[in-house]
Amino acid sequence: MSDIGIGIIGTGFMGQSHALAYRAAGGIFPLTRKPVLEMVADNNEAAGAAAFRQYGFKRVTNNWRDLVNDPHIHIVSITTPNTLHKEMALAAIAAGKHVHCEKPIAPNAADAKEMLEAAEKAGVKTQVGFNYIKNPVLKLAREMIISGELGDIIGFRGIHAEDYMTDPDGVWSWRLDPKGGGGVIADLGSHIIGMARFLLGPITELFADLETVVPSRPIAPGSSERRAVEVDDIARLTVRFARGCRGSIEANWCATGRKMQLGFEVAGTKGSLSFTQERFNELRYYKVGGDPRHQGFTTIEAGPAHAPYGRFCVAPGHQIGFNDLKAIEVAEFLAAIENGEGANPDFREAWEIQKIVDMAIKASVTRNWVSIS
Amino acid sequence: MSDIGIGIIGTGFMGQSHALAYRAAGGIFPLTRKPVLEMVADNNEAAGAAAFRQYGFKRVTNNWRDLVNDPHIHIVSITTPNTLHKEMALAAIAAGKHVHCEKPIAPNAADAKEMLEAAEKAGVKTQVGFNYIKNPVLKLAREMIISGELGDIIGFRGIHAEDYMTDPDGVWSWRLDPKGGGGVIADLGSHIIGMARFLLGPITELFADLETVVPSRPIAPGSSERRAVEVDDIARLTVRFARGCRGSIEANWCATGRKMQLGFEVAGTKGSLSFTQERFNELRYYKVGGDPRHQGFTTIEAGPAHAPYGRFCVAPGHQIGFNDLKAIEVAEFLAAIENGEGANPDFREAWEIQKIVDMAIKASVTRNWVSIS
Amino acid sequence: MSDIGIGIIGTGFMGQSHALAYRAAGGIFPLTRKPVLEMVADNNEAAGAAAFRQYGFKRVTNNWRDLVNDPHIHIVSITTPNTLHKEMALAAIAAGKHVHCEKPIAPNAADAKEMLEAAEKAGVKTQVGFNYIKNPVLKLAREMIISGELGDIIGFRGIHAEDYMTDPDGVWSWRLDPKGGGGVIADLGSHIIGMARFLLGPITELFADLETVVPSRPIAPGSSERRAVEVDDIARLTVRFARGCRGSIEANWCATGRKMQLGFEVAGTKGSLSFTQERFNELRYYKVGGDPRHQGFTTIEAGPAHAPYGRFCVAPGHQIGFNDLKAIEVAEFLAAIENGEGANPDFREAWEIQKIVDMAIKASVTRNWVSIS
Amino acid sequence: MSDIGIGIIGTGFMGQSHALAYRAAGGIFPLTRKPVLEMVADNNEAAGAAAFRQYGFKRVTNNWRDLVNDPHIHIVSITTPNTLHKEMALAAIAAGKHVHCEKPIAPNAADAKEMLEAAEKAGVKTQVGFNYIKNPVLKLAREMIISGELGDIIGFRGIHAEDYMTDPDGVWSWRLDPKGGGGVIADLGSHIIGMARFLLGPITELFADLETVVPSRPIAPGSSERRAVEVDDIARLTVRFARGCRGSIEANWCATGRKMQLGFEVAGTKGSLSFTQERFNELRYYKVGGDPRHQGFTTIEAGPAHAPYGRFCVAPGHQIGFNDLKAIEVAEFLAAIENGEGANPDFREAWEIQKIVDMAIKASVTRNWVSIS
Repeated sequence: MSDIGIGIIGTGFMGQSHALAYRAAGGIFPLTRKPVLEMVADNNEAAGAAAFRQYGFKRVTNNWRDLVNDPHIHIVSITTPNTLHKEMALAAIAAGKHVHCEKPIAPNAADAKEMLEAAEKAGVKTQVGFNYIKNPVLKLAREMIISGELGDIIGFRGIHAEDYMTDPDGVWSWRLDPKGGGGVIADLGSHIIGMARFLLGPITELFADLETVVPSRPIAPGSSERRAVEVDDIARLTVRFARGCRGSIEANWCATGRKMQLGFEVAGTKGSLSFTQERFNELRYYKVGGDPRHQGFTTIEAGPAHAPYGRFCVAPGHQIGFNDLKAIEVAEFLAAIENGEGANPDFREAWEIQKIVDMAIKASVTRNWVSIS
Repeated sequence: MSDIGIGIIGTGFMGQSHALAYRAAGGIFPLTRKPVLEMVADNNEAAGAAAFRQYGFKRVTNNWRDLVNDPHIHIVSITTPNTLHKEMALAAIAAGKHVHCEKPIAPNAADAKEMLEAAEKAGVKTQVGFNYIKNPVLKLAREMIISGELGDIIGFRGIHAEDYMTDPDGVWSWRLDPKGGGGVIADLGSHIIGMARFLLGPITELFADLETVVPSRPIAPGSSERRAVEVDDIARLTVRFARGCRGSIEANWCATGRKMQLGFEVAGTKGSLSFTQERFNELRYYKVGGDPRHQGFTTIEAGPAHAPYGRFCVAPGHQIGFNDLKAIEVAEFLAAIENGEGANPDFREAWEIQKIVDMAIKASVTRNWVSIS
Repeated sequence: MSDIGIGIIGTGFMGQSHALAYRAAGGIFPLTRKPVLEMVADNNEAAGAAAFRQYGFKRVTNNWRDLVNDPHIHIVSITTPNTLHKEMALAAIAAGKHVHCEKPIAPNAADAKEMLEAAEKAGVKTQVGFNYIKNPVLKLAREMIISGELGDIIGFRGIHAEDYMTDPDGVWSWRLDPKGGGGVIADLGSHIIGMARFLLGPITELFADLETVVPSRPIAPGSSERRAVEVDDIARLTVRFARGCRGSIEANWCATGRKMQLGFEVAGTKGSLSFTQERFNELRYYKVGGDPRHQGFTTIEAGPAHAPYGRFCVAPGHQIGFNDLKAIEVAEFLAAIENGEGANPDFREAWEIQKIVDMAIKASVTRNWVSIS
Repeated sequence: MSDIGIGIIGTGFMGQSHALAYRAAGGIFPLTRKPVLEMVADNNEAAGAAAFRQYGFKRVTNNWRDLVNDPHIHIVSITTPNTLHKEMALAAIAAGKHVHCEKPIAPNAADAKEMLEAAEKAGVKTQVGFNYIKNPVLKLAREMIISGELGDIIGFRGIHAEDYMTDPDGVWSWRLDPKGGGGVIADLGSHIIGMARFLLGPITELFADLETVVPSRPIAPGSSERRAVEVDDIARLTVRFARGCRGSIEANWCATGRKMQLGFEVAGTKGSLSFTQERFNELRYYKVGGDPRHQGFTTIEAGPAHAPYGRFCVAPGHQIGFNDLKAIEVAEFLAAIENGEGANPDFREAWEIQKIVDMAIKASVTRNWVSIS
């Protein structure tokens, strides 16, 4: 088994997640090339050094350009704040590297398009970190929709709600910069939009109401100086899918008490599905017909019948965790590189998602329906 | 204890519910006047006769006008299809009767206004059958919102979804007549709109997307002749409340597998609540603060701490049923009549709800935000 | 419809429950004779008077013997503390009345036997208030077991746990008198033992460990004088059924936080069921076989497919309440009287249950397996 | 960071689990020595070769004695069928290795004692794979019990039920050999017994009923030749703890539909806890007192407030998986070796658990209470 060199830029929440996933994937999946943690980059030298030691990288740098241009690195993993993604990705692409980038890849669709065109032109593979859809039971959900087991799809209701911005005295951060994080529609909305597309395909039209709940936030903990918040805290979308059905989507980071309410309900003429990431090893399935005395939602528990769960554990009911979702993402990216196939979701898919994010902002401002081109 | 005579028009689902509630209320609540099932009216004589026998009415008629004008009747209960409500209610009001009417009371707000003005002018009391908000744990929810226990309200998400219209070969009925049932926004939407108002007060502005999922339906079981459906099967609303917060509302009678998904989630700066009628003896409550190791949603079980649960049972956890909600509605109406106070929800509240229903239809057609006057 | 006169002795929790049930049953069920609340008896005159007014009895007495011997009374309902049941029941039987008695009917099996023999000899019908098994979804559970849908039954786990005796400073009451309430094995244990028998038939052998958690209790609120507790607070049984399978049963009134944890899990070779009274309009069903991707427990919601739910409501998902279970019990008793059939559970069944209670106490004392004769 | 060499014997379910855990631990935890997968042993050469490749071991052998005696190996991990544990562990101890052994470590307490004495005499550290108790929310549960947050403990109910032996035509295996797996009391019972001890301390006395549900099984798939089963399929225990409270324990591998029903409910005078491994990132907590309107069980979601969850993910609600529990086990073992402290659970604890298993078998045969010495 030959090696494939990994370079990770950024050492925060997602930096850890990528590092652990690349470490783990080779043990879990039958990879043809072994991922090697070649280098980590962080402009904060202490953070870089800590990650270097913790995750077992071979080298560390405070200059991400060194990493991008390093000849032993084949995959560049970008886990920095969103504003930095574009420059880093373009540099990595220019250096001929495959790029694994956290979401959203860019602050707007135009930038995302530029990135995807650069990648496609360069012939490198890209992967974007919409990790939740790597869930085995969501693969089952998608399969049931595509195969027709649910019949004609009637409607969709999706949500991604957490509560980390609920406190009005929570500190201003890059997530609240319109050119940075881009608000909840970009941060969490992109996940549930991506999940909606994963399950049901393209969205063609939408209406949206974006709201800033907390108008200003302290510039530092305890500071009396406050900075205006220019992005949305809650986004409510009404959407129409190319396949004909309609739905609603909510993104919300002021959802008091919710830590990971990423979920959906999708109804079809032959059945329906209900899911929440809060119990992500379960999928609830209602099948139309059969004995009327026995009708109801069945709580399916993830198990070896739901690939690739069996790679983690041969027995049902044992459950995979969040980091395992990331390991699946990594393994699929490595397989795509190996097989010359497209990864999913790639920069093109991220661009499609970003278009919807952009159009949601537009629809909210114009107070009108907007089409997705 | 003197008597108060009850006349019920209609003997279907709601006719039964009213009859059982008026029978039961006197045993459960400390009423000052005893409700007597004086007369039942149904133009279907067999149905009328069956109800007469089953519920123990004193008399039966196939002419509702006899009932409305009967001197022994003090309360007229109207449980017929929606199109008939107005004429019957106006006649009852003209005869000086208090009116207990099923929802929606009218096919549009203008008619509802006419009805409410007639009632207010005549000085009779009115009550409308939005029974779900009579739930003891929803009274608790409202109390927690009003008292400030949840802090400032941040957002609302409401839904009423069932599946009785999911089957494309389900037969055309009066519910599908725009001048009759008025579509799901009127049938189920009115419940969740009423619940939103019960909890959070007036809605001032809305956007809506109403959708007809099944374009035509058989005119009779198995018939190949189909009649066009001119009303909505799914309605998705984005709303703004007078108090400042915003929310979303879905009404859906094509929600495969859902039998009674009437629920909401409301978040505030100090706490949040989550509820579904599917488990309506429970209310989930998240309280901000306290020991971080113990944070989470608490599942409150209905008990004597939540009036008027204790009227039904002295022990917690025993649970009340749907018919008990209706008994609470009846008892509150009787108390309002006795005390000369306004019942709730009355025709005025029903008019407020109907305005939102009308504006949702308008917003969907115009594809624009609409203000509620 | 002729009348059938009801006399109720006792006006506490169960007195209310019986009164409401006899009031309600005639409206819900197609009875051939109309139950009339003829008389209520309580030696506490104020309590008797209050019940007389509240439930609409025709007459009230402070002497239960007057009630028992009243010629207009056909059914005597006994809802007093357990020690009083025998004397009252024997008197009612002697007067030729049908007897509806709360559980446990007697402090021991010998007394229960005397009562049942008197009733059978007199040819009167008896009914005992094990109301929880009147639940439509438990009728479904039993039906599935009997029909073989679950295959051969493998095992059973039953529990009835509440927390009303958890507080060590809770006051001593008649429930704590060995000749009175008889401890948790009699008070709650009889429910889950009865449910086990309802589902799986006779228990032939058992082992038990009965425990007094709180050794003494104040004789009055706040009193420093304490009286020794001579009965069990928690009972743990290991049982064997005549049909061949085995199981465990717990009765517990010191189960902190539990208000109505009456439930079971029963496994068979073709399926299994899981139930808790905390959500008693639901039954969880696992069916062996089928598509392995879809396996799991289905949450069946009570609906018209589960008789007699449809008598209460024509639509699924609306839910019945605790008092409705009691109305079903009453209706079945009235039907049994009318049809000359045996009611269920009757005094004979109550005797069977009491034998198990007695044997559990014996097994705990002797620390040995005990056979049920 | 120096290395610490790991040798793993066995490549089945647990062999994979150990390999993945030793791979992962160094990335997640701040270890002082880096675990290196030095060698894997399997007498099935193909299986050994596959594991060698998959998990990235340096070497592979079909002779476990080579592994045990290899000078680069400091920890020997034993994941073979139970009958083989003793010989392998003693050889590893004799070679001065620390031993990480799957549970049960031996077919009886006498053998376990011999193993623990050998380990203690040799001064090597031992760790046994009762991985479920490594759960962050169970550490919280234990902490709440020890700190007195639950008050005096009243009672315990524990269960470990799965369904992998439900099918009567499931093939005979080493698990069904009394000298091998030892039946469900050893296989699953040891987990819930260990969990009971982890939470509440020593068990001093027990009663048990062990049952063989399927008397014989095919010797091979589809074979008509059947071999008698001499071990228990379901074990029901009544237990008493040294601290004074009592409880029940069930172990069951014929629990149709259950994939991982490992759970408990523990009640105290100030609160109670409810847990099931089916949703092992949650702990349900009831706290006595406070506003009576708000009482109920709180569903605590695992998060950074529950160490070591934060090592896996900085955000709450993301969830850890089964393999992460094993990584915690490994990290704690490595820390114990490094710090010269005892690991937990070690061979001594495994011996304590095995004594209870042995006494359960004895109690079932003798049909009497048995004391645990």
